[in-house]
Amino acid sequence: MTKNKPVVRFTCPMPQTDFDTITIGHGSGGKLTRRLLDTMVFPLLNNEWLAGQGDGAVLNLHGRMAVSTDSFVVSPVFFPGGDIGDLAINGTVNDLAMCGAQPDFISLSFILEEGLPITELWEILLSIRNACDAAGVRVITGDTKVVERGKGDKIFINTTGIGRVHHGAKLGEAMVRPGDKVIVSGPLARHGIAIMSIRKGLEFETQILSDTRPLHEICRSLLYGYGGGIRMFRDPTRGGVATVLHEIADKARLGIDLDEKHIPVEDEVAGACEMLGLDPMYVANEGLFITIVDDGLAADILGDLQRWEHGAGAAIIGTITENHPGTVILNSAIGGKRVLPLITGEQLPRIC
Amino acid sequence: MTKNKPVVRFTCPMPQTDFDTITIGHGSGGKLTRRLLDTMVFPLLNNEWLAGQGDGAVLNLHGRMAVSTDSFVVSPVFFPGGDIGDLAINGTVNDLAMCGAQPDFISLSFILEEGLPITELWEILLSIRNACDAAGVRVITGDTKVVERGKGDKIFINTTGIGRVHHGAKLGEAMVRPGDKVIVSGPLARHGIAIMSIRKGLEFETQILSDTRPLHEICRSLLYGYGGGIRMFRDPTRGGVATVLHEIADKARLGIDLDEKHIPVEDEVAGACEMLGLDPMYVANEGLFITIVDDGLAADILGDLQRWEHGAGAAIIGTITENHPGTVILNSAIGGKRVLPLITGEQLPRIC
Repeated sequence: MTKNKPVVRFTCPMPQTDFDTITIGHGSGGKLTRRLLDTMVFPLLNNEWLAGQGDGAVLNLHGRMAVSTDSFVVSPVFFPGGDIGDLAINGTVNDLAMCGAQPDFISLSFILEEGLPITELWEILLSIRNACDAAGVRVITGDTKVVERGKGDKIFINTTGIGRVHHGAKLGEAMVRPGDKVIVSGPLARHGIAIMSIRKGLEFETQILSDTRPLHEICRSLLYGYGGGIRMFRDPTRGGVATVLHEIADKARLGIDLDEKHIPVEDEVAGACEMLGLDPMYVANEGLFITIVDDGLAADILGDLQRWEHGAGAAIIGTITENHPGTVILNSAIGGKRVLPLITGEQLPRIC
Repeated sequence: MTKNKPVVRFTCPMPQTDFDTITIGHGSGGKLTRRLLDTMVFPLLNNEWLAGQGDGAVLNLHGRMAVSTDSFVVSPVFFPGGDIGDLAINGTVNDLAMCGAQPDFISLSFILEEGLPITELWEILLSIRNACDAAGVRVITGDTKVVERGKGDKIFINTTGIGRVHHGAKLGEAMVRPGDKVIVSGPLARHGIAIMSIRKGLEFETQILSDTRPLHEICRSLLYGYGGGIRMFRDPTRGGVATVLHEIADKARLGIDLDEKHIPVEDEVAGACEMLGLDPMYVANEGLFITIVDDGLAADILGDLQRWEHGAGAAIIGTITENHPGTVILNSAIGGKRVLPLITGEQLPRIC
């Protein structure tokens, strides 16, 4: 098992084009659209399905398949540790991983704003290519639309993924039992803080990078090793860990007791959260997952997780309980207890 | 075979909400997002997959499946004969139909602009529900994002569809042979003209309605009846019939000879095109398809098509030829010949 894959980033000089920015004509479906796709998109992402270039792709599929969709509107589109391109691939790859699936195929749909510099589009396309390579997923079909200046914001990307579900996966809130343990795969809040630091022009001693990355291999290895001992996966993106735990408690009709002292937050991230007035429990993550596991297997699962580069900071942070169903209780380091509320609105808009 | 289904439009009063417009908080992933989905979306579209409400849906799929994606940015969002809601469902349903597939499952992803009136969102959701019912397709997973006022344009919708390909379908440019006939399923240019009439504030004696509608039943019945005699389907949306014929000629490395006098255009549409300075061959359609068929079966196929309500205006408009590969020639009613060019840019921006 390759737990620490060397990262070789594919790169390629931008092809010569006779346009510097996206124009309304690039969304026409005519000659300009074709030129954009033929010079920039197909050479980077090509495979047997994209080569067909019809109204859709035809696949041979057999068995339990997971399907997930997300539109990405993150602002700014470039941020420390990533950009909207790898975020859009990793986000959907991870939603499939949370269903216990291998990311096999993905669709890619752009809404471009007139005036988007071609150099920025190229950088995003390279990120998409690299994220696809890293996750082993193929772009099989796509779409490109252009809206007038001021009717969009540089680039929005929709990805929809399809992948085979692991045969041993029996996942979902219905599988969760009192006594099960809550594990988080690493330290919280990095993605949200990376975005906010750019928006607010903050500088920290060490730059905080987004944690955007694919999670399917680590999840698959847990399913392979522990089968039904893994009750469910969820990735705490928008709304953070607190929001996801609320949803789990709500749907499972069980309570969750959290140990504050075991919740992993890096010092720099904690400091940035304090400066920004944010609670790391509600800040978005893009390379993190929560798993609920059988109590008796929890220590082994934690040990396995910690052997992965991106699981080194994993921790058991709480326990499922029959008491207070639907409620998440935070047991503080100094012995207090408080109910973790579900926030109403948006703490950090356009984080993904 | 029900060729003229009575249309019973599902309707439902808008649920009580404590918000009148979309706010940034509706994209938070927290309580407001949940309230929006629970009051307006899930009750309208619910099924066993949406009920799960996880990171994705798990399906049992077997065999050849078509996958297609499209983002819809049409402006205005309401137009004569439809709105962005039914357009987004029918558009993807038709892309599946063009692959010879039955529309089974669809994902639905919204990018909402802050300030969108809830009454408009409700009307769009009702259209989505009705279009899904008409096509027999289920919404299995989705996403909702909100962008600030001035960073979007009311609502953009992405749909990605998955459907079983008909066992008799052997479709694509590679199947096209010299001598094959080109059939169009009805009169051209209605969708584009419906949109333009609103944008330009034009009034005609009779209002021209968009032709947005699902095409899978009619396509499936042709595949059932004629199998390999059907070489391919394409729907001439953005860029119209001319752009699609160009793509076919290009990919098949064959020429197309068109008979101008057989190309069906309604008088009112022709008049509107003249007034707007548009060529109906390049104007978008949303309920029309082109099929290339075996010469010996063309008359039978045309007869079958014409028995459908929406195929009544079908016509054989041209022939595939070995001469002038990659070129589409228009033979005019008065005996002239001209090459039909591929337009460069956008004749009608944001038409779908």
